[in-house]
Amino acid sequence: MAKELTSRAENYSQWYNDLVIKADLAENSAVRGSMVIKPYGYAIWEKMQSALDQMFKDTGHENAYFPLFIPKSFFAKEAAHVEGFAKECAVVTHYRLKNDGKGGVVVDETAKLEEELIVRPTSETIIWDTYRKWIQSYRDLPLLINQWANVVRWEMRTRLFLRTAEFLWQEGHTAHATKDEAVKEAELILDVYADFAENWMGVPVLKGVKSPGERFAGAVETYCIEALMQDGKALQAGTSHFLGQNFAKAFDVKYVTKDNQQEYVWATSWGVSTRLVGALIMSHSDDNGLVLPPKLAPIQVVIVPIYKKPEQLDEITTEVDKIVKDLKAKGISVKFDNRDTHKPGFKFAEWELKGVPVRLAIGPRDLENGTVEVARRDTLEKETLALQDIAHKIENLLENIQHNIFQKAHSFRDENTFNADTWNEFKDRIEKGGFVWAHWDGSDETEEKIKEETKATIRLIPVNGKLEEGKCIFSGKPSKQRVVFAKAY
Amino acid sequence: MAKELTSRAENYSQWYNDLVIKADLAENSAVRGSMVIKPYGYAIWEKMQSALDQMFKDTGHENAYFPLFIPKSFFAKEAAHVEGFAKECAVVTHYRLKNDGKGGVVVDETAKLEEELIVRPTSETIIWDTYRKWIQSYRDLPLLINQWANVVRWEMRTRLFLRTAEFLWQEGHTAHATKDEAVKEAELILDVYADFAENWMGVPVLKGVKSPGERFAGAVETYCIEALMQDGKALQAGTSHFLGQNFAKAFDVKYVTKDNQQEYVWATSWGVSTRLVGALIMSHSDDNGLVLPPKLAPIQVVIVPIYKKPEQLDEITTEVDKIVKDLKAKGISVKFDNRDTHKPGFKFAEWELKGVPVRLAIGPRDLENGTVEVARRDTLEKETLALQDIAHKIENLLENIQHNIFQKAHSFRDENTFNADTWNEFKDRIEKGGFVWAHWDGSDETEEKIKEETKATIRLIPVNGKLEEGKCIFSGKPSKQRVVFAKAY
Repeated sequence: MAKELTSRAENYSQWYNDLVIKADLAENSAVRGSMVIKPYGYAIWEKMQSALDQMFKDTGHENAYFPLFIPKSFFAKEAAHVEGFAKECAVVTHYRLKNDGKGGVVVDETAKLEEELIVRPTSETIIWDTYRKWIQSYRDLPLLINQWANVVRWEMRTRLFLRTAEFLWQEGHTAHATKDEAVKEAELILDVYADFAENWMGVPVLKGVKSPGERFAGAVETYCIEALMQDGKALQAGTSHFLGQNFAKAFDVKYVTKDNQQEYVWATSWGVSTRLVGALIMSHSDDNGLVLPPKLAPIQVVIVPIYKKPEQLDEITTEVDKIVKDLKAKGISVKFDNRDTHKPGFKFAEWELKGVPVRLAIGPRDLENGTVEVARRDTLEKETLALQDIAHKIENLLENIQHNIFQKAHSFRDENTFNADTWNEFKDRIEKGGFVWAHWDGSDETEEKIKEETKATIRLIPVNGKLEEGKCIFSGKPSKQRVVFAKAY
Repeated sequence: MAKELTSRAENYSQWYNDLVIKADLAENSAVRGSMVIKPYGYAIWEKMQSALDQMFKDTGHENAYFPLFIPKSFFAKEAAHVEGFAKECAVVTHYRLKNDGKGGVVVDETAKLEEELIVRPTSETIIWDTYRKWIQSYRDLPLLINQWANVVRWEMRTRLFLRTAEFLWQEGHTAHATKDEAVKEAELILDVYADFAENWMGVPVLKGVKSPGERFAGAVETYCIEALMQDGKALQAGTSHFLGQNFAKAFDVKYVTKDNQQEYVWATSWGVSTRLVGALIMSHSDDNGLVLPPKLAPIQVVIVPIYKKPEQLDEITTEVDKIVKDLKAKGISVKFDNRDTHKPGFKFAEWELKGVPVRLAIGPRDLENGTVEVARRDTLEKETLALQDIAHKIENLLENIQHNIFQKAHSFRDENTFNADTWNEFKDRIEKGGFVWAHWDGSDETEEKIKEETKATIRLIPVNGKLEEGKCIFSGKPSKQRVVFAKAY
């Protein structure tokens, strides 16, 4: 077919870009750095949203919606926060256009805002300004709120899904009476994210905390999940921040305790974004196209009729209608591709490119024999099965594929995880790709130098991980545990 | 209780504002004209979204996502469109802040955009710029796309839900090969909106088209649904636009027909917004608070225990657990309000304020008798029912309430719909409120003068309505049918 992909071996980066475009997931827009998410890509995001939203609700969270715009002065209230985000803010300065007298429009300079508005890059400031009004007493706590929203960060180098100026995400913002409760919340959400990554996306993740240099701007501790892509680079798939009392102090949010004392409130925030679609693509897909885990596939089963004469199609359709009905009764999404404009070979390649987990092909001989050809996308294996009880067989096969996709990614990660004990070994391993566990002396300076020399960053520090005395790979200073290094997206 | 509302009779406008705040639906934010949608208000919007989204999908539409920002030059391409929206646009001019050296931040003047970006007030321009790339042949049509998004219109006078600078909505944008097909699409969506308003919101609506003066900027025809609020003012609850080839011409979107001819594509766009939450509140609620139709109520049933001793609560809880289980099995959302911090009377008032359709109260005597007290929010009636088969009885009651809410609003509209045949009669009727059917000569000038003198606007012109010769209420010129006038939100 016409839509051939660059192979991963040839050029992984080009393969990714080709795939996003050719599988109709997204494309660049006329606005620098902003993408258009096409229906097939958006359908994957909707499935992600739906699963995550249920998980948040099951853990006691409610959705709300806060303004897109944030007054500039709010930003300056938390010093680390503004330092982290000021350099990538879209700024609204005017609220009106006018005719330029030449058929175009210009900004109306008389409609200048007294205070500029920032398009939210994240919403801690506007939300904590609001929480001041909502929280008076310990009875108002905890406050467990999430919002689904778009945010803007003026990134200079963008890539579809992975890094875009505007992206879609969810951001949770919770308020608690005690430090302990807030830390537990941040950890709970990390577990929710890891559960989602592994059991829905089929992407194994490591859990840990960021080094101080990689923390969210304004956080006391940033928890993260990290996944390994097929090119050996790491991808941060979600973060959950323990914010201490930083935002409560910046926005003066206090509560009255049971003992009638005034105390600052403890906070968390946490988010995952459309970046997860990029992670999903890069974890499983191959040189034929997307490989989607059944739980997130917009279409789980496609059925392609094989026929020469119209009356054969009629007979096949009668049989297919029964299969479709049985599959739908099990909650399985199915598409009967009966287009007469394309040949089966074209359709096979197209649905492979789009990552549909199971493909059924059925022709006159199958009808005679009471069989159907079943192809699975993950292994590209085919087998001919009896039509009897086929919906049940496919249901099992989808579960099997979901499991297999995760196992395959897990094996890949295992094969690409290493210890390094000398600087040369470290540089060599980092160059080849993968997660590298190594000792680090805990200083920002060493972290920075390692990054300069190898482009590797500390992806995470394990929490409650195995303690092991060792020497820093770079400085030789003492260290109590290994941390995980990798080159990253 | 403390949260007393202003009565509708005393001050309808104040009643509405009080209710939105006191029922915890929304509040004003620190950003002028932008609201914070609180969890209870957002839960209503989520229910609306979910129902509408399914209706769009059932009629063949897919979701996608287009950029928040629109290049300024795109706006100038469709003359009527820019004229309609240029005066209320938020404009992004810079992409960076910097420290001001005094602990604050200022806009970095070196980071000025070459071309300003408009925060989308609606997305026709960016979408039709994209469609140019997606549409080549008749095989690419129809294109049936919807997006859920936030938009910004710099309104000067804002009211929670009804008119805010930023609001949430869905916007459908479809492309068709023929005029006829596009008109049918605009009409289909109008029917979907009317179905949703009547059968989910319980709000009866009139369907028709706008006069040229009230059309969407860039449309050939604007279809609308109009509802009547309890103060006798009309509220436009949804619009569906037939855009002709205006945007296809502005953005050069042509397709090759089956006969191999190049033709411009035909378009529609359509939207409903968080304004519907305002319409819902104003249609049904009373001086005790919200009245929510069961299909959109975040909590459909609340259960309040009546007890003096803890062991009584234990016994009640055992019985309530069974009721909750049976209700949930029927898909009914239920909350057991067992807070020990508040008395039953407080709880009754609170759930009345929040519009929960059905309230159950159960005490020791009920346990003895095998009964429960059932109160319905719409009529405030109470009755004592046997516990046997209670879930089934409540299921029927919820259906009954859904129906009754609609009937009540329908009767109200009937009682407040009038014909007017003289100018004095017209002025008098308009002053009193309600829908007024009257003859109009079809001219912009007359429409404008009627508005100046009475504040009434033409809400809609019936499509395929009864033809009736008559004379314009204002000019005396001949007219072929009555149109609907009202003062409006």
